[in-house]
Order: sequence, then C-alpha cells, then structure tokens
Amino acid sequence: MTTATQFKVLEQNHPRVDAHDKVTGRATYASDVYLPGMLACKLLPSTRNHARIVSMDTSQAAALPGVRAIITGSDFPDIRYGSGALRDRYVMPREVVNFVGEPIAAVAADDEATAQEAVELIRVEYEDIPSVVNPLAAMVEGAASVHPELESYEGYGFTLGHNVSTLLDADRGDVEQAFRDADVVVEDVYRSQGINQGFLEPMACVADVEPNGRLVMYASTQGPYQLRASLAGVLEMPVSRIRVVAMELGGGFGAKLRLACEAFPALLAMRTGRPVKLINTREEVFTLNGPRLPVTNYIRSGVMNDGTIVAREAYTIFDVGAYLGAGPNSGIGHGIGAYRIPNFRLRSYGVYTNKIYVGSYRASGVADMTFAVESHMDRIAHEIGMDPYDLRLHNALREGDVSVSGAVVPSNGLIETLEAIKEKMEWPRQLEDGHGLGLALCEWRSGSGPSTAAISINDDGTVSLLTGSTDISGSDTSLAAIAAEALGIPMESVIVAKRDTDMAPYTGQSGGSRVVYSQGTAVHRAAQDTVQKLTALAAERLGVPEDALACEDGRVYVMDNEPQGLTFAQLAAASITSRGGPIIGTAALSSMPYTPVFAAQAAEIKVDRGTGQIKLLRYVQAQDVGVAINPMAVEGQLDGGVVQGIGRALTEDQQFDPDNGAVRNPSFASYLMPLAIDLPEIEDVLIRVPAEDGPFGARAVAEPPGFGPPAAIANAVYDAVGVRVKQLPLSGERVLAALNGEYDDIPFDVEALRLAEGII
Amino acid sequence: MTTATQFKVLEQNHPRVDAHDKVTGRATYASDVYLPGMLACKLLPSTRNHARIVSMDTSQAAALPGVRAIITGSDFPDIRYGSGALRDRYVMPREVVNFVGEPIAAVAADDEATAQEAVELIRVEYEDIPSVVNPLAAMVEGAASVHPELESYEGYGFTLGHNVSTLLDADRGDVEQAFRDADVVVEDVYRSQGINQGFLEPMACVADVEPNGRLVMYASTQGPYQLRASLAGVLEMPVSRIRVVAMELGGGFGAKLRLACEAFPALLAMRTGRPVKLINTREEVFTLNGPRLPVTNYIRSGVMNDGTIVAREAYTIFDVGAYLGAGPNSGIGHGIGAYRIPNFRLRSYGVYTNKIYVGSYRASGVADMTFAVESHMDRIAHEIGMDPYDLRLHNALREGDVSVSGAVVPSNGLIETLEAIKEKMEWPRQLEDGHGLGLALCEWRSGSGPSTAAISINDDGTVSLLTGSTDISGSDTSLAAIAAEALGIPMESVIVAKRDTDMAPYTGQSGGSRVVYSQGTAVHRAAQDTVQKLTALAAERLGVPEDALACEDGRVYVMDNEPQGLTFAQLAAASITSRGGPIIGTAALSSMPYTPVFAAQAAEIKVDRGTGQIKLLRYVQAQDVGVAINPMAVEGQLDGGVVQGIGRALTEDQQFDPDNGAVRNPSFASYLMPLAIDLPEIEDVLIRVPAEDGPFGARAVAEPPGFGPPAAIANAVYDAVGVRVKQLPLSGERVLAALNGEYDDIPFDVEALRLAEGII
Repeated sequence: MTTATQFKVLEQNHPRVDAHDKVTGRATYASDVYLPGMLACKLLPSTRNHARIVSMDTSQAAALPGVRAIITGSDFPDIRYGSGALRDRYVMPREVVNFVGEPIAAVAADDEATAQEAVELIRVEYEDIPSVVNPLAAMVEGAASVHPELESYEGYGFTLGHNVSTLLDADRGDVEQAFRDADVVVEDVYRSQGINQGFLEPMACVADVEPNGRLVMYASTQGPYQLRASLAGVLEMPVSRIRVVAMELGGGFGAKLRLACEAFPALLAMRTGRPVKLINTREEVFTLNGPRLPVTNYIRSGVMNDGTIVAREAYTIFDVGAYLGAGPNSGIGHGIGAYRIPNFRLRSYGVYTNKIYVGSYRASGVADMTFAVESHMDRIAHEIGMDPYDLRLHNALREGDVSVSGAVVPSNGLIETLEAIKEKMEWPRQLEDGHGLGLALCEWRSGSGPSTAAISINDDGTVSLLTGSTDISGSDTSLAAIAAEALGIPMESVIVAKRDTDMAPYTGQSGGSRVVYSQGTAVHRAAQDTVQKLTALAAERLGVPEDALACEDGRVYVMDNEPQGLTFAQLAAASITSRGGPIIGTAALSSMPYTPVFAAQAAEIKVDRGTGQIKLLRYVQAQDVGVAINPMAVEGQLDGGVVQGIGRALTEDQQFDPDNGAVRNPSFASYLMPLAIDLPEIEDVLIRVPAEDGPFGARAVAEPPGFGPPAAIANAVYDAVGVRVKQLPLSGERVLAALNGEYDDIPFDVEALRLAEGII
Repeated sequence: MTTATQFKVLEQNHPRVDAHDKVTGRATYASDVYLPGMLACKLLPSTRNHARIVSMDTSQAAALPGVRAIITGSDFPDIRYGSGALRDRYVMPREVVNFVGEPIAAVAADDEATAQEAVELIRVEYEDIPSVVNPLAAMVEGAASVHPELESYEGYGFTLGHNVSTLLDADRGDVEQAFRDADVVVEDVYRSQGINQGFLEPMACVADVEPNGRLVMYASTQGPYQLRASLAGVLEMPVSRIRVVAMELGGGFGAKLRLACEAFPALLAMRTGRPVKLINTREEVFTLNGPRLPVTNYIRSGVMNDGTIVAREAYTIFDVGAYLGAGPNSGIGHGIGAYRIPNFRLRSYGVYTNKIYVGSYRASGVADMTFAVESHMDRIAHEIGMDPYDLRLHNALREGDVSVSGAVVPSNGLIETLEAIKEKMEWPRQLEDGHGLGLALCEWRSGSGPSTAAISINDDGTVSLLTGSTDISGSDTSLAAIAAEALGIPMESVIVAKRDTDMAPYTGQSGGSRVVYSQGTAVHRAAQDTVQKLTALAAERLGVPEDALACEDGRVYVMDNEPQGLTFAQLAAASITSRGGPIIGTAALSSMPYTPVFAAQAAEIKVDRGTGQIKLLRYVQAQDVGVAINPMAVEGQLDGGVVQGIGRALTEDQQFDPDNGAVRNPSFASYLMPLAIDLPEIEDVLIRVPAEDGPFGARAVAEPPGFGPPAAIANAVYDAVGVRVKQLPLSGERVLAALNGEYDDIPFDVEALRLAEGII
C-alpha cells in the first residue's frame, strides 16, 4: 500500500495556486471584462408556460435612444439543438414558449438600464396552449403534450409514452422468481425536491467580434470546448470561427457545463459589431441555468431473513422540465447502490413538463437515488430486525463483484470506510430520547472523458503545464502537484497556464469528478513523456545508455555515479542546441478504466418534538480517496460536498407554481442554503486504498460527499423519533407533521408502468 | 523541380491573418494595455558619456504628490548581465555611466506628467572620467578605457587589445603566398554609418505583479522567452515567477530581440504593487534600443588576370558603443561574400566606445559587409578590365563548394538569380551621360534555432496551431499556410493561437530569417505527426492497416476504395472516445542544416552633376526563395527589405557628437528614412530552387533584400559619373564632393593590426 512518505509533493498540503488572486479580488471573472464600446444585454422572459407567440412588437423598444439591436427567435438560424440526447429546443423560441421565464427577445443597449427599459417596451401577444406541470400527471393518457412533435425530433428513437423524453433500463437475473423466493419484500416511494446549484457567480459572458468576423466569447464555463461546439451549432458557424476564453469560475457545480445564454450576446455582437456583455440576474440564474427538478422513486426489494438482498425493482421518474438538459441515467446507474444484488429491474424515465428545464448538479440524480436507496436500506433493516450497519456490511460490493454497469469491481476501500465510520461514531450507540444516529453509504466512479496535457521545460528547469481543463475547486493546484511529483520538482516550479480554446488541446468538461482522475492521468503521462525525453537527451550528452540513468529532484544522473548528471536547467539549455529541440512532453487519453469511489457517512442529530426541527450534532464521513494529491484540497472537497448534501437534506427546495410551473423562490432570500451557523464540524476520515489506475493511485473525490446527508439524516430522524420521512427536504414542518402521523402523499402508479412495459 | 501546381495552399496569395485587426486599429499593442491603478514610468537619462555618479538627490522628486516610487541602480541586485558574449553591464548603472542618455533613475507616478516632473527634480552630481568616442582611436594605446575592468568580466577569455570586446577570426589556405601569386592586388577601406531600425511602434511595456508576487510583462518583443530569461537574470527571480505576454509587434527588425527598458517598470511594479507602464519616447528609442553603429572595413584581394580571386584579407572594425549588444560575427561570416575564394584571412573587432550600445538590425552587419565586398568586386572588375557581371559569375559559389563557415554548399539558385537580373536589366547596356547601372550579389542563410509547434484537432475538423514565435511581417500567416498544406485543409481551418510564455512551448526569437524556415519546419513536422496519429486512429476504426490509407483534403481514406474513409471532423469525434484520446501533433527542433539564400540586385540611377543627388530609376531584384509559401508575403518582404536598403544607401544616418558621443538626430525629422516619393517601383523576380531542408523546400526570405542597395547604387554612381564613394550614405553632398575630387578620409592602420597579431 502506498504511504505518504513515498511522496515528495503529494500527500502534503499546498495552498491553491489561485488563492492569492481570489482572496485579494484580483481574479478576473467574465463580469470583470470591459471592452471599448461594450453594450449591455437584457432578456425578455416569457410570462406563459405554454403558448404560441401571436405577435411581438419591438418598435417602441427599438426607438428608445441608446438601443442598438433587438433580436428574437427568428433572428437565429432555424436549427434545433439539444444538450441531452434529443434536439428538442431552439436557442430562443421561434413560435411556442414552453416555460415561464423562457427568453423570447434580447436587447443590446448602451447601458443596462436602457436595455431593461427597452425590454419592458416590447409588446407580446400570446395564445395559450394546454400545459402540464406535474411529471406523474404528464405521463397519463390525455395529458397536455409539452412537445407535440416529439416523435420527429432528431435523437428520438421509439415511442416511449406520453411526454416521456427518454426511458433507460437495466436488468439482471430473474427478478420475478427472486421476489417469489424472498422471505420479505419491502416497498417504498421517495420524492426529492428541486435543487439549485447555488453558485455565487451568476452566469456572465462578454461576446466580442473581431474585425474578421471571428467570435470571441469570454465566459464563465466548465467546458469551453463544449460551449464552443454549442455556439457553433446554434449560430451555424464553424468551430474555427469561435474562440472561447474560460474566465475564472465563481462556482458551477454542473450548471456551467452547457450553453446557457451565451448565444444572445453573441448574435447581438455580430449584429452591432460591438462587444456585448450579459450578466444574469439571480432570478435568471434560478430560471435559465438548469437546476435539478424533483425526482420520484419507487423502490422494492426482496430480502432473505439473514439480510441478503436478492431482488431489486426501481422505477424512477425524473422531471426534465421543458427540455432535456441532463439525462436520467443515474436512475439505472445507482438503483442498487453500493451493494451486490443479483437480480434487478431498473427503469428511469425522463418526463417533459412546462417548467424550466433540468440541468446538471454534482453527479445529477445520484443524490436523489442515494436518498431513496439508503433510506430503503434502513427500512429493510428494521423490517427484518437487523442492525442497519450489519445489513450494509453484509451486502456491500467486494472486489471481483460485478457492478450495475457490468464492470468488475477492482480493489477498493468500501469496507474500510464502513469500519472507520463505525469506530468514529461508536456505532451502535444508545442515545437519549429525541437523539438519533443514521448511516448512508455512497458510491460513485472516477470520471473519464477526453483529457490532454502538454508540459514544456523552461530554460531555468521549471516547467509550464498546459491543459484544456477549467479550474474547479483547486484542480489546477492538484494538476500542478501531480506534475511536480512525477517530475521530481517542487510545486513552485510548475506554471499552470490559463487557457482558452485557441491554445490548449481539446479537453472534456470540468465536472463529474473527472479532472484529477482523468486529466491528472494525462498530466502524469505527459510528465513521464517529458522525463523520457530529458533522459534521452541526458544520455546523448553524458554518453551513457538511457537505462543507466535515473531522474530525481529535477536532475537526470548516472545511477552508478550520482555526481555525474545534468539538472533540468542544464538539459533545457542543452535542448536548445540539440537535434530534438526544446523538450515538450504530451499525453492524451479518452477513456479510463472503471474505478469506483466509496464513502460511508453518519449523522448524529437531535429532533425537537415541539417544532420538528432537526439539529445536526455531528457529521462523520470516511471516503476512499486512493491517494490524497493535496490533503487540504481533498478535505475541502469532502466538507463542501457534505454541506451541499446537508442543504439538500434540510432546507434547500426550489419550488414551482403548481399551475404554471413558474419558479416560486428565485432568490437566496427564499431558497435557503445552509449557513455556517447551521452546521456542525464535519469530521473527515481519509481511507487510502490506491486505485489501480489514476495518477499515483488517486481516486476522484468531489461527488460522493454530497450524496449521503439526506438518507443519513432521515435515518437518524427515524432512530431519534421513530418517523420515516420519505420526502425532501426534511423541514421542521414535514417532520412535525410526521410526528403527528401526517405524511406527504406520494402517489405512484407502478402497476401502470409495468403494464405499459408488458411486464405484467 | 517543385512547381506551384503541386500545392493546394502554398504558392497562392493569402491576406495576412492579422490584416483586419491591424487596418481597423483593433490589434492590441503593449501601449494599449490599461490596468486598474496603473502608474506611468519615466526615466532620468545621464548627461555625461563617462562619469562617476558622486551623488543623486531624489528627495524633492519623492516629495512630489503623485510620485509612488523612485529607483536607481542600487535598487537592483548587484548583477552584471550581457546580451552578447560578455556580461559587461548593469541594467541600470550603479556608479559609472558609459553613454549620454543612459538611464540612471526611474520614477513611477500617477501620470506621465508627474513622473516627468519628478525626473527633472532629481539632482545628480557627476565626476567626469576620460572617454573615447571613435572606435579607431579607442584601439590605440593610451586611449581612455571604456571598461577598465574589462578583463574581469565573465565571458572575456583572453587579452584582445585596448577596448576590444571581442575579436573573431576565420582563415583558410595560404593567404600570403596567394597574394604573392596574384596578378593584381586591390585594396580598399569602406565605412558605413549608424543605422536606426526605424520601427514605428516605440518600445512599450506594462509590468504587473500578481498578488502572489508573480511578474507579468506585457511587452513589445521579438523574443518573449529571451526577455523572460533576461528579466529573471537582472531581477534575480526564477523564470517560473515571470510570465511574458507578447503583444502585437509594431516593427522590431532586431531592436526588440533583447531586454531594453522592461526591468525598470518591472521593479517599480514590484515596489508599488501596482501595474506600471513605460512607453519610450522617440528620443529614447534612438538612444536605448541598440541601433547599428558605424563599421569600418579594410578589404584587400589578390586576383588573376582571368578574374579568379585567389586571396582575400578583411579587417572589420565594429563600433559596439558602451556595451556589446550584438556580436561582430558578420565580419568573418561575410568577408568573402557569395564567392569561392580559396585563401582568406578575416578579422572582426568589436570595439567599445562611450556612446549608446550596438544592437541588432536585420542580419546585423551583413549589409555593411555587403556594401564593402560588392563595391570592392566592382573595383576589381574595373581594375582588370572585366565586366562586373562576368567577374561575379566567374567567382560565384556553386553546389559542392565550401562556404566560409566550412559547410558544403547545397543546391541553390545563385546562378539563376544572376541570370535573371542580367535579362531583366538588359545588362550590359550603354546609357546616356549621368546615368548608370550597378550590381550587387547578396548572400545569407536560412535561420536556425529552437523551434516548437503543437497542432490539435478541433471537433469540427479544424486545427489549432500553437507556437512560441512572435508574429513578424505575416509569419503567422505563413505558418498557417504550411500547416494547411501539410494537413490538406484550407487556410481558414487553421487557428493560429496568440501566445505567451506560460502557454506556448519554448521557441527562439523571431528574427534573422528564422521563422518560416525553422519554425515552419517544426510546424510541418507537427502536421506530419498529426497526420500519423489521424491515420492510426482511422486504421483502428476502419479496420484496415495504416499503410492502406492516404490523407488528403481533410480526410483519411482507403487508397483502394476512396469512398471508405473518415473526415478530420469524424476522426476528431472518434478520438474523444479512443484509447489515444484527442489528437495533438507536436514537433521540436533546434538546429537545421545550412541552407543558403542568394539574391542578385541591380540599380539604374541618374546622378545630378550639379547637386550630387542620386535619382533611382529602376531597382530589380531576383532571389532564390525555394518555394513561395505565400507569394504576396514574399514580395512584401522583398520590397520592404530593398526599401530599407535604399534608406541605408542614400539618406539614413544616425549621427553622434564627436566629443561626447550623444545622438545628434534622435527623431524622424532629422533621421531621414525614404518616403514613397523617393522610390521607384521595385521589380521582383522569384527564383524557385527548392531547399533540401525547410518546409516544402522554402528558404528564408527576409534579410537579403536589404543588403544590396548600398553597393548596387554606389556601383551605379561609378558607372554614371566615374566616382567611387566608399562611405555611406551616398548623400548629395558626398557625391558632389567626390565629383569635385574630394573624398572622405577613412584612416585605417592595417599594419598596426597585423603587427598586433604577429602576422608581420
């Protein structure tokens, strides 16, 4: 097993390379871009959730002094695009609006106030079309159709049912027989709420058009290359005519993976020949950036009396809103959790409704699935009279098991995380009345996708590292640490370049726990390529064979004669007159092997029986990180994730008007994120079972911490006061109602779904 | 022989990729950089050319409201640096000033006017030291010593003589015997003047310090990596703590190859924590940017009656001013010109004087050498009664000859350039009185040095090209054309990235005809690497062996079955899920084989016997370009170079006070560059003998055009009116004086030099 002492850079704390810039306010965000002659952009939101635009009169707005251009849907090429599996939307509606707040016109004016005044002068006449807001209602025969032409959309393969955008399935074994053989069958329906990513920096961008017509987009984005491709699509321009400059990111968490409003200032800039800036209001952030929408989860298990789970059925309904932003794949990917279940039937529906569209947020949907699966595990435990910890340990995936996707589970630290939590939380433990303990087990995988890196040696022996990844939560610092470790040089000797799409090689988005594992592997391999080239050059100059040389501490030397060697600086100087020229190491990769990440979490809480309020007393998590590239960054990720999960468990709730689907609480005053005062100290345990792949054995870190709190806290509530709340958030009102025997009604007609599938 | 029809991109005219930005004023130069809180920097120039600074009182200046910092030499680390072979200078003098105008203090203030006012409030007390201004006088025993501690300087190898910074030699054969055997010996002394590079954009830069202490330098530079290294040296900082952003270049021609004034705003920015901008005045440009200083050339040849030159002796004295900016290597590299001369003794002295320091300008010194060598060729021709054209043809270097450096001359178009000029100028031709024709032959080599390139494929099949070369005179366009040709895609599909030292791989300076030949080769090889990777991926996806595939027109296809293939866009998409990941092709090289460049030029002129004024009637040049990457850019280079050469021949003359060496004419009102009205149409003939190396057979283009005009015009003056002017410029006054039998006295004690060497 790898230990910290093997490393010179890794497993040691390094402040973020961008820390000074961020804390002193010198970091440049998209909203900090000021260009000469720049115009301000404002958007006109639809007031209806399903309507035909009969007419739009922009004449008064256009006549306002200072207004430079107004665009509507018909100013864009007549092209449908999509960020998910279907091309189901126009960048701006041409005829029909599908949700309240959908932008139907954009104005560029000399200043924001003028642009806003102009927006308000646009007169729109609508003709309402029947709409549907609740996804379960939307699936019923006779419901209004959100996309009447759905079957003609590119990407739509076969008839899935009413308003169903996508239906995914995963099956193994003989599920019916297994249920018949089971000693006990446990059945539940869970519901989780709409969740906003809650990033601090509103989406902002500046579009500029070079005199040669090339579009430059300064953007707040997690995926500059993907943004470039989307812009090229909706504007019908070749990718090579667009440059995306990824500015500092003030939080993204999935919301900045895709095209949002960038096309509006882009087209306005092309129309006016002047730079155009758009900064979303917080209301627009809540409406246009694709938060997570409610998920309803039917889950049923067949269990033997010894605790062995033999069968699982799960039907998950993902509300995707007006457009399919992120797919419902977590419904099948995480329906069995971190357990070996030999027989399963998993179904995952994405259902259109006339409300804002769904987007990504930290491993979209997995937190919803984990709430259901891990609450359900406790239900099973109590049903068969087994300790919830023992039930989890009994069924936990082990090395050599087959994961839900069919991949063989490699060595991992799942059991160690469970054991660490048991020890740390002193589980099981008898508590006073109203106090409770709850467990949750979280599983995720290390993210893959296109990753590239280039390392060049500077003339003083320091290196420049170029990647296409946007920095999120200190990932640049981690990549620098990986390069430093692989090259045997200090962190300070690694320059991490700021990048844009013109300069850096193509790279996937920063998200889904992808950067350190996949991008980090590319950096590791580029460093190895660099070492190989340095060694070849040293061999040539020292007149010895390459295999007689070692590379360490920024120096290549003869193993048998350590004083004989050349420093990186000397090699950099030599390279300039060498046949091979300056040293550049590169690496590229696309897919990485399946590498799971497991975490165990436990909450200790107190419930106020008078108000239903939950007070968190302790929160403990243990996660298998493989190797900690930068322990302080790892703990930052773990703590940040748990806090997001606590918000999801207790207070966060993006709400929609049941009649027209409008966002009810589009502000931080009404959308309640946890404050420091709401939180206990988070206790972290790092488990280190090195990954078989990944840089130096590191696993992804970011996502799992956020999955556990809803179930761990819900399970603790049951432990404390004996009520099982199956709907999030676990608000005081909801817990109090449960204490009074009143539970939310979560209707779910699983028979109808089975019937439609022909299963019964 | 390669013909234009083989190419799809090359040999066709492409407007410069930066043309729109430049003509619309959108291109961003260093002076266009505005940062919040930015200060202005002004410099205090020394008023003496050799003096000890007894005291400097900055108290009044520091007390001026708005003044933020004042620095003097002792604020910099006590480190000598040098841009040439010797570490002979401080970035700002600590005790002793060596030329009039040398900056001895710098002020940062809220605005330029305040900074200038502060500069004028600094009180300096000097104690004069004996000085010397004329290099020939400086070499004489007993002359004042510019650098009394010269022998202690790092890089100074052995005693060279009084005030001699460097002495280079090149010898071949038995020179004394050859002179004894010769039928005729011809001996001359030539003198060329100080020449300013005459770029339009004054040197400008903005220094910024990030909160973490990292220095960012926005600079007008031909060599961002070299500037970074120099700044690191004089500021005693690691290279990795400095980032140089190369801004658009408004002309450089060699003056922006090296550290100039950038360290002053850099230190001021570090002292104040605020960005500091320095824009040189035109007077500072003439004083601090290292122009060329006068060159004196003793040249003697032994010739047989049939015209065969059997011996050559040349002693060249380069005035290097106060510091050795550029070495005197052209004195030995170009003492025999484009001719086969079996016996030679070439000596080249760099001599210190108390005036501004020498820098680089378009193949520094070669134009001076060409003036001497090609004037001397005409002198020989007339001496032995041979046509100057025939003499040149008779002695011209041929393939297989050995060049002065010892390299074997590869195939080339020298003879073709001579023949083309003969035909075009209808040589020999009898002209009316006062009219004359003159020839000159120019030789240079294609520049080498560290070159790197990286090409990545975008998702639509276009490519991004990343190099570390600053764009000079359209070189980005040429590099794009090379990439396009090698990849089989249109020019529009190549994005050339703007670069800085953080991002691009280490690359040599843009200068010395280096970019297209060496950097272009790196781009060509990177494109080949890209094609190889695309082919490997296509082979994998199509299930055929790599050697069954061809790559053409942005597509890899099966040679036996053309419709079966994949476009670059399809391959880019495939790469994202491939084992190898996104496609990046790279290449690096340092040295390229010797590839000569030859040009023949001819002038037709008329001399006004009453005023001595020369009127240029025709100017014809033929140059072997190998292959024209972008013919309109090649002709732009040829025409621009000839115009610079005409300025050197007729009007340009940077003059120095004979007593204190101060620049006498530091402005475009007194330093006379040719205007359009002074010029005939330049007639260009492109000869295409492909180089054995170089991208697609291309040779360097930029430098030779500027070498020929002084000799071609001087030879035409002799043809027209029978006077031989051996000193530049060929001003009306000087020609008129010659017509009256008065010639400049150019004293040259060659005996003393031979004696010092022990030759006689």
